[in-house]
Amino acid sequence: MTGENTPPVTRRDEGAVAVLTLDRPAARNSLSRAMLAALQAALDGVAADPGIRAVVLAAEGPAFCAGHDLKEITARRADLDGGAAFFTETMAACSTVMQAVVALPQPVIAAVQGIATAAGCQLAASCDLVVAAESAKFCTPGVDIGLFCTTPGVALARAVPRKSAMEMLLLGEMVPAEEARRMGLVNRVVPADAVLPTALDLAGRIASRSAVAVQMGKRGFNRQAALPLAEAYDAAGRVMVENLLAEDAAEGIGAFVAKRRPEWRHR
Amino acid sequence: MTGENTPPVTRRDEGAVAVLTLDRPAARNSLSRAMLAALQAALDGVAADPGIRAVVLAAEGPAFCAGHDLKEITARRADLDGGAAFFTETMAACSTVMQAVVALPQPVIAAVQGIATAAGCQLAASCDLVVAAESAKFCTPGVDIGLFCTTPGVALARAVPRKSAMEMLLLGEMVPAEEARRMGLVNRVVPADAVLPTALDLAGRIASRSAVAVQMGKRGFNRQAALPLAEAYDAAGRVMVENLLAEDAAEGIGAFVAKRRPEWRHR
Amino acid sequence: MTGENTPPVTRRDEGAVAVLTLDRPAARNSLSRAMLAALQAALDGVAADPGIRAVVLAAEGPAFCAGHDLKEITARRADLDGGAAFFTETMAACSTVMQAVVALPQPVIAAVQGIATAAGCQLAASCDLVVAAESAKFCTPGVDIGLFCTTPGVALARAVPRKSAMEMLLLGEMVPAEEARRMGLVNRVVPADAVLPTALDLAGRIASRSAVAVQMGKRGFNRQAALPLAEAYDAAGRVMVENLLAEDAAEGIGAFVAKRRPEWRHR
Repeated sequence: MTGENTPPVTRRDEGAVAVLTLDRPAARNSLSRAMLAALQAALDGVAADPGIRAVVLAAEGPAFCAGHDLKEITARRADLDGGAAFFTETMAACSTVMQAVVALPQPVIAAVQGIATAAGCQLAASCDLVVAAESAKFCTPGVDIGLFCTTPGVALARAVPRKSAMEMLLLGEMVPAEEARRMGLVNRVVPADAVLPTALDLAGRIASRSAVAVQMGKRGFNRQAALPLAEAYDAAGRVMVENLLAEDAAEGIGAFVAKRRPEWRHR
Repeated sequence: MTGENTPPVTRRDEGAVAVLTLDRPAARNSLSRAMLAALQAALDGVAADPGIRAVVLAAEGPAFCAGHDLKEITARRADLDGGAAFFTETMAACSTVMQAVVALPQPVIAAVQGIATAAGCQLAASCDLVVAAESAKFCTPGVDIGLFCTTPGVALARAVPRKSAMEMLLLGEMVPAEEARRMGLVNRVVPADAVLPTALDLAGRIASRSAVAVQMGKRGFNRQAALPLAEAYDAAGRVMVENLLAEDAAEGIGAFVAKRRPEWRHR
Repeated sequence: MTGENTPPVTRRDEGAVAVLTLDRPAARNSLSRAMLAALQAALDGVAADPGIRAVVLAAEGPAFCAGHDLKEITARRADLDGGAAFFTETMAACSTVMQAVVALPQPVIAAVQGIATAAGCQLAASCDLVVAAESAKFCTPGVDIGLFCTTPGVALARAVPRKSAMEMLLLGEMVPAEEARRMGLVNRVVPADAVLPTALDLAGRIASRSAVAVQMGKRGFNRQAALPLAEAYDAAGRVMVENLLAEDAAEGIGAFVAKRRPEWRHR
């Protein structure tokens, strides 16, 4: 049972994996300001927690996340400025959350059990990996309400081919999970009851590796991917040397050469 | 019947959709300077026409477009400068047309009924969406004539994976429509007689939406896609706020919340 | 028979095609400093050889390339600086080889007959085209040894969709050739005994074209792909004019217009 008095985002740790769950199913987990603040706080908490090595982002109810809270937005049109300040703050808060997912030291795996629309689709697209139910659907339907999904397009453009992104954005059609996988938006499509277990399995496998290597790697990947080739190699090469000099690489490579199992240093 | 005295590009409006048709089938709709000028003029006309909300780019005959007019190019080798000035002007005119498609306020849907080769492939790749006949083929065969399809590669590199683009450019093989769809170059593959109806249907759906939102969205998408993530979110966030404050978003979101049909303001 | 006294990279020319073969099968063709130096020298030799118009990069044994030589790396931990200088030099040498493949005037086709892991996967991904055996596998398993495949990620991020790259890097799973093809990492999947013949066939077709056009084209493609759209068109347009003014384009276009076979000028 969830209601207005329970937190909109819950955190449950399974070993070194934090499971963050959007928990406003009646509101289709829409990104109200309260939900954005709770999600930001949860991400900040995970970022600061050295015991956490991977994150699963899940949701309660039939929708993964329905995007912005349109009732909240509409209500603020009555503000003296017609909502301008509120809209600006809301977009800033939302973009900060999305970039916090990308910048989180730990990899984030979305467990998309239902419909992910507009900023909800953006949230899934912002995660490092996406596991989706066969029945899940992805959609950027802003054109239906006169509000083009421009910020969701930021995450989409970086996940799928250009024409696939434009098709989603211009037509606003529901994209089934399997088609989303072919586009590159989803990594694994599984039966509905396997979504969370699969996401937890992937997270557990990531958490079993050296946290130093995984965190250097995620950060290094995102940094180099935005650079021209020569600069990308410079940046990535520096990360590799730093990683090679880290204790876990000495242990891991040494164990590999000696054909034994590595024991990662826990921070 | 079309001939040298008819315009090389025709425009026919169906409601808010402009259908631009390349109409030199005997010349395989090649991009002679006359064709480029006609296409540029047609695009400029559409850009300035507030009554048009989507564009279909179609072609007459068995070829969608065969690229540059090689006879025209060859003839100008007799110029005092060996053609240098003409080639420079032609490339500039062609690149301006391609960028005009990308920059056009209205979305452009290519209806590719036949073969799209070299700059003809580039023209299709430059459109926002591509509908192709099952029998359509895409090809960048410049290597066969000693002229690598370098400018078509600009559009290809932004539509398909890197190795797919290199394969098309280095080998010059015909790529069937279905394979082009898997690459990301084509959105929909349909029977030949459904190409134009399908493109018109997609255009009509886009035209039925808020023109303000669609045009802000197309422009905003292309701008952010070229930026680093943080700058992309800044730019896209500003577009979202502007869009939220536009009359059509108030109407569209209000209608959604009130569960009624939105009525877009026509400019 | 190959051993420590034979060169780690062999070169065999078939007409205008140079076949470079990694030839340390017992070491799974790992990129020891000796292997990197030999590969760099072979690439430098090909770059300076006007008789070579395409390159096949092949390998002996069950592995295409297993990435860095972990025994060599481990041994240098005994250095006074813990290996820091050696690791820095090794990463620089490796990144230079990878960028030399990209910058090589001639197109490079990887013939991946076996497993391509870590920097071996990066080497394949750095080639212009990849032919792979049905039984070939691609993998970036650095996470298993505490050394995230950050530099392989540079090549991967430019070949496959973002989430596919992250999945390979975070999970370190073996990716079968056919799945790698769907991702965009591989152009052709063929039976094992057809890998080298297919790569040679593609190389032969490229070599039969105008070397001037192909080399301008490869260089021009890589340059424009890293630029914003308007700059990309400026750069590509200049390449097209230069190409149009080259003797081979005059011959190739003239032959096409006259419906005869072109005869490329050999340098």
